[in-house]
Amino acid sequence: MAHGIDEVARAAGVSTATVSRALRGLPNVSETTRRRVQEAALLLGYVASPSAASLASGRTRTIGLLTPWVTRWFFSNVIEGAERALRTQGFDALLYTFEVSRYAPRRRVDPDVLRRRVDGILVVGLPLHAVEVDALHALGHPMIFIGTGVDGRVTVRLDDLGTGREATEHLLGLGHRRIGHVTGSPDDVSPLSPPVARREGWAAAMAAAGVDPDPALEVHGHFDVQGGRESAHALLTRCPDVTAVFAASDEMAMGVMLAARDLGLRVPQDVSVIGVDGHELGELVGLTTMRQPALEQGAAAASLLLGMIAGGPPPASVVYPTTLVERGSTGRPRTVATA
Amino acid sequence: MAHGIDEVARAAGVSTATVSRALRGLPNVSETTRRRVQEAALLLGYVASPSAASLASGRTRTIGLLTPWVTRWFFSNVIEGAERALRTQGFDALLYTFEVSRYAPRRRVDPDVLRRRVDGILVVGLPLHAVEVDALHALGHPMIFIGTGVDGRVTVRLDDLGTGREATEHLLGLGHRRIGHVTGSPDDVSPLSPPVARREGWAAAMAAAGVDPDPALEVHGHFDVQGGRESAHALLTRCPDVTAVFAASDEMAMGVMLAARDLGLRVPQDVSVIGVDGHELGELVGLTTMRQPALEQGAAAASLLLGMIAGGPPPASVVYPTTLVERGSTGRPRTVATA
Repeated sequence: MAHGIDEVARAAGVSTATVSRALRGLPNVSETTRRRVQEAALLLGYVASPSAASLASGRTRTIGLLTPWVTRWFFSNVIEGAERALRTQGFDALLYTFEVSRYAPRRRVDPDVLRRRVDGILVVGLPLHAVEVDALHALGHPMIFIGTGVDGRVTVRLDDLGTGREATEHLLGLGHRRIGHVTGSPDDVSPLSPPVARREGWAAAMAAAGVDPDPALEVHGHFDVQGGRESAHALLTRCPDVTAVFAASDEMAMGVMLAARDLGLRVPQDVSVIGVDGHELGELVGLTTMRQPALEQGAAAASLLLGMIAGGPPPASVVYPTTLVERGSTGRPRTVATA
Repeated sequence: MAHGIDEVARAAGVSTATVSRALRGLPNVSETTRRRVQEAALLLGYVASPSAASLASGRTRTIGLLTPWVTRWFFSNVIEGAERALRTQGFDALLYTFEVSRYAPRRRVDPDVLRRRVDGILVVGLPLHAVEVDALHALGHPMIFIGTGVDGRVTVRLDDLGTGREATEHLLGLGHRRIGHVTGSPDDVSPLSPPVARREGWAAAMAAAGVDPDPALEVHGHFDVQGGRESAHALLTRCPDVTAVFAASDEMAMGVMLAARDLGLRVPQDVSVIGVDGHELGELVGLTTMRQPALEQGAAAASLLLGMIAGGPPPASVVYPTTLVERGSTGRPRTVATA
């Protein structure tokens, strides 16, 4: 059983403050005293608490990671990328999930739990209200947003508008005109939110091709497989003239593939499907996608944040491009094939 | 800018220790002093650090979560389940990954980083050396193992032996005899490790059916899609008489399906495939699997750990059963079909 700082102070005949200073190598402790304290600490098996030491020096060597989910592809990859990058610099990641669900309101982010526990904050794909961003900002910690945007803050993200446009252009190029879109949740409306920007890309590409981005073509898939499936089921039932669907994530796109199967529709003969991500299981199901680097975004954001913590100026935001990966889930529309 | 405890102590004319005691409501502080300290703290915008307060009282309200990966299905689900359960009790999760890779040795678990930072430890599917377990145990924190076993410690896990046996019996029942097995990594050899126990179940079922569990039928898939794919490619090339494969995880099983496709083999006509997990994308690819509750294991382990932290005795280990989910990836073998 290890002993506390009090026992070390008593054994060395000094104050606990002196023990703390001696063991952390701070000045104003004589060499004799330092040696006496170190011997007492060794003898009693006392190890200076990293938390206490870092608090005293204003550093916790811990980053708060705020995210809605751990299980979704993008989020788990960003978290893993960030955690590994932090680890190499001796920083820990405190994980805070704030589930975004279609069934219940999200828990409010409470800045107080982060106040003295972290040196910086990474917000991973969590759409925050302005009041929450302000409250976090007031903590005075460096903060970076990944996969979500906030005006005037450092963000690491995709070219979401371009991604939505390019995905839609791929379908338009194959001859599709009635192209459905599966987006996130109805209450995610910030213009910098990835699903909102990807939807804008879809609408812009449609308009540029002289096709009406009919609101009836849009459904909310809530960024999971089941949500993609249910919303695509509704869309393909309501609009049987839809020949292609652009989903804002691969997990939703795979849900669209399930919905097509449920309805007896073949992919891509009856309906083409394209997603966004580059999910590792996309190859097995032949999913065409806009591939993004997710581990890399986590690592880059962590590295930028550590630079800010070290006293560097806020870096420029980073925007990653996506790459079209063509597989079997997209093809020419049936209306053209049978024309 | 918030002020520190030193300023509050100066303003109130007391020691920092008294400030700490006063703000945490501990005894041996007069009501007059407590009020003076509270007023000074309020005036100076000082907020008692939860870390410092909890350290002093021996509680960090933080759990250390040790895991090899965040991105794999089982791990992300267990982490999410545990984190949510901890959150409801006001506990945070510190995430520590120790990547298990076929390319590099794993980083050693250093108990010192956990010593004063956590009240308890959850080890999620991380195979530890005995010396690491002993070092963690020596910290004196309650500790629970999920999805991996250590003799004499509290574990939350599957009936891995039964799972391996039942999966293999499913294939035997369809008429397969040459049944390959994709397991984890060669250096994971603890008899309580899930892949080792699942492999034992495979061998036991084979032997019970009078079939030789030929070592040539075993390959190492390292628990990811690519590893399953490469190892199954080698297996199906080396042993063309194999008509079915039992993989110790769904991700590896989906890798086996990719390998079959690479080799021009149809699933299930040429090769049947069964996995373990209940991955959410298993339905889309028609994967037969032994479904396990993963979120639930994370939540249960967190809840048991909090009970231990609250002073309860070590609970009994929990063993979850798995459920066979039959889909299109398993069928009768070609040798029978063409007989």
